[in-house]
Amino acid sequence: MFSAETYKQRRKILKDHVKSGVIYFPGNDEAPMNYGANTYKYRQDSTFLYYFGIDSAGHEAVIDVDNDLDILFGDDRQIDDVIWMGPELPLADRALAFGVEETSPLSKLADFFNESNSRKVHFLPQYRADNILKIEKYLGIHNSKVNENVSVDLIKGVVAQRSIKSEEELMEIEKAIEISYAMNTLAMKMSKPGKVERDVFGAVEGLALSLGSGVSFPIIFSVDGERLHNHHHENIMEAGRLLVLDSGAESPMHYASDITRTFPVNGKFTDIQRDIYNIVLNSHLAAIDMMKPGIPYRDVHLKSALVIAEGLTGLGFMKGNPEDAVKEGAHALFFPHGLGHMLGLDVHDMENLGENYIGYTDQIKRSDQFGLAYLRMGKPLEAGHVLTVEPGIYFINDLIRIWKNENKFADFINYDKLESMLGFGGVRIEDDVVVTEESHRILGRPIPKTIEEVEETCSN
Amino acid sequence: MFSAETYKQRRKILKDHVKSGVIYFPGNDEAPMNYGANTYKYRQDSTFLYYFGIDSAGHEAVIDVDNDLDILFGDDRQIDDVIWMGPELPLADRALAFGVEETSPLSKLADFFNESNSRKVHFLPQYRADNILKIEKYLGIHNSKVNENVSVDLIKGVVAQRSIKSEEELMEIEKAIEISYAMNTLAMKMSKPGKVERDVFGAVEGLALSLGSGVSFPIIFSVDGERLHNHHHENIMEAGRLLVLDSGAESPMHYASDITRTFPVNGKFTDIQRDIYNIVLNSHLAAIDMMKPGIPYRDVHLKSALVIAEGLTGLGFMKGNPEDAVKEGAHALFFPHGLGHMLGLDVHDMENLGENYIGYTDQIKRSDQFGLAYLRMGKPLEAGHVLTVEPGIYFINDLIRIWKNENKFADFINYDKLESMLGFGGVRIEDDVVVTEESHRILGRPIPKTIEEVEETCSN
Repeated sequence: MFSAETYKQRRKILKDHVKSGVIYFPGNDEAPMNYGANTYKYRQDSTFLYYFGIDSAGHEAVIDVDNDLDILFGDDRQIDDVIWMGPELPLADRALAFGVEETSPLSKLADFFNESNSRKVHFLPQYRADNILKIEKYLGIHNSKVNENVSVDLIKGVVAQRSIKSEEELMEIEKAIEISYAMNTLAMKMSKPGKVERDVFGAVEGLALSLGSGVSFPIIFSVDGERLHNHHHENIMEAGRLLVLDSGAESPMHYASDITRTFPVNGKFTDIQRDIYNIVLNSHLAAIDMMKPGIPYRDVHLKSALVIAEGLTGLGFMKGNPEDAVKEGAHALFFPHGLGHMLGLDVHDMENLGENYIGYTDQIKRSDQFGLAYLRMGKPLEAGHVLTVEPGIYFINDLIRIWKNENKFADFINYDKLESMLGFGGVRIEDDVVVTEESHRILGRPIPKTIEEVEETCSN
Repeated sequence: MFSAETYKQRRKILKDHVKSGVIYFPGNDEAPMNYGANTYKYRQDSTFLYYFGIDSAGHEAVIDVDNDLDILFGDDRQIDDVIWMGPELPLADRALAFGVEETSPLSKLADFFNESNSRKVHFLPQYRADNILKIEKYLGIHNSKVNENVSVDLIKGVVAQRSIKSEEELMEIEKAIEISYAMNTLAMKMSKPGKVERDVFGAVEGLALSLGSGVSFPIIFSVDGERLHNHHHENIMEAGRLLVLDSGAESPMHYASDITRTFPVNGKFTDIQRDIYNIVLNSHLAAIDMMKPGIPYRDVHLKSALVIAEGLTGLGFMKGNPEDAVKEGAHALFFPHGLGHMLGLDVHDMENLGENYIGYTDQIKRSDQFGLAYLRMGKPLEAGHVLTVEPGIYFINDLIRIWKNENKFADFINYDKLESMLGFGGVRIEDDVVVTEESHRILGRPIPKTIEEVEETCSN
């Protein structure tokens, strides 16, 4: 954990921003899997972790801005809990580590809200139904209306703080990337023709549990790399196919990494795989090269798209002027997603607070063009932003079929030549990059990325 | 999956039991981890799996008993979903595999309930808040009252069916135990002085993902074996200590295993570890030996407790008459939990339906004595029941201190002699057993269990 002073300072800045009223942060409770007592691996809410640090279920946090009070609500373990779960320090002691001097039993939270009932209570958008029900119970807002009554002022204050990563936060993200190094190189070494995807997937997820706090999102690992968020792992690996591994770990303090690598099942790229791979790699490197304060990330995305369009035109899969193709969105047949997103305590950092607060401004609004509409971050970069940079090229059979039937962008797409690429799969390459005062830095230990580095690692 | 006929037959039996009205089974949706789109590994509700088989989010099931109709509600994938997740058969086709001929878009579910508003709608107790909110929305029952309005008749019908496992269900449980074999022997081989618990924990959980559908409950793996449900894995393994691994896997169809083994960090039991281990093993074997139709599982539990009390009396940790000690509950200082529980699609099978419907009857009611009160199953065994048999002996510092200060059961407990055992940890041994027509059978490939077998495996 960080110092108590860090958490106090974060809360002070938030209080100065919100100015008055009460802020309520529901803590995440255990999430039931198939019955109440059989729960998933515990995950605290990231904003709760950011301001209050406590990393276990059964806690609620309140900031009384008017009276400059930070309060943690929770109960101490009784002997029955000790038998089942072991002893634990009382909440009053645990809270001090995060600079919180006021604690109270959970049962007192209703009283607290009753006594402050004429004051404004700020809360964030909620993504867990049990926390929505807490807000209904304590604040009297019907569950269907909770997310219509969030505090935009609070959202903006939290986004402003969490968007800029401190040096100690960057070190945590780099701890997560160190785990990603192990996960990716293990996958490259283990994958062989004849194995099933889940043989490798399980070992990779196991590493994330052994070395940190588990995965930061469900692992994507498949020879069907053209399925962007594919969570099935049942294919048998066949020589000649590419594997896409898009995965991340959580550091002990729950900061995320998010890394994608693409490598051949049998360790050697074919000529066409090599060509496509190098277009994606060039796109990835060109994007990173542009990153510095003041540059809108949408421009970085469009640059990466242009490199892809140029490369695919060079290979004859696209035609015409690549700049025009990107402007009209024709490249999105192959690169239908955004270049990247913020990364921090969440892998899509703060996504629950509303993507447009995170990635867009009143000046730079989200596009509704297919492909570009999926870009999560469009606004100008600032020092301390951490972004993923993850362009890709995919041959998605169903999408090609639909566009071809519509003769869509026929001036830019060479549909006849695409026939040979059905079944190719996809290529994506992703690293995590911090924007510095003058430029940028790729975070963490370099993970094999060039064709030569990947083939070398696969052969070990 | 089983045959369509199996699912149809299960639903027919349920309809015959419930006789009239409508039955609503909310399907489990994705469970958000730290924001809405970042979800835990998907787990369908077990009762939904039992009657309808569909193993993915976004489905609702209804049985219209009056009109003998089984209906699955859900939406087919559109092109955007196909890009992100790949293609999938339409629901109408997937439903046929489970013998369901009637399907409908999700948006029609509200209409269905509106049109059946004068009829009784049966539903089961709900453990996920989002499913509670569905019942509020569709049936107009306030969320705080949903679990007060469950159908006891439906609960009893489901419990009667799911309690008796068919041969094909037993085969699924045995697939899960085969994964447990790999998990337990890996842990025995990997554990060494100097390793951290999570080094091994992660590899074991990874195996469950590689070989099946992941763990059936959060893995308990610790040198602090006296903490019964300890989910922290941060201890460094020291020679001379015992490790308790209580873990289970899910078969591809989500049937659970639940196996506990205890083994020494450095592969060799000390004399006192050997003595305690063999008492637990004798208790475990004596319990299994008694199992057959008609025997109340509470009697089996009490037999296992008696073997423990006799053993601890023999070693001088207890004194007086062991039968009296068990009657009064003095042994529960060392064995504070129940002998076991039903096992099936849930590791504590059907626990969400209400433990007392599963494990007790009007004749055999749950005790309120410390220790025995935790026994989840007390009623007479029947052929087809699958039970865990998991006695243990623990030296729980806090509990010993409290009882000693109260001089509790001083006639039965030799507190002075216990001082030397603080820090010993605990021993638990668990297998999964099916009750047969005449007797019982331990399920699955035998996992090393005697001192000799365990030491042999650890040394490999």
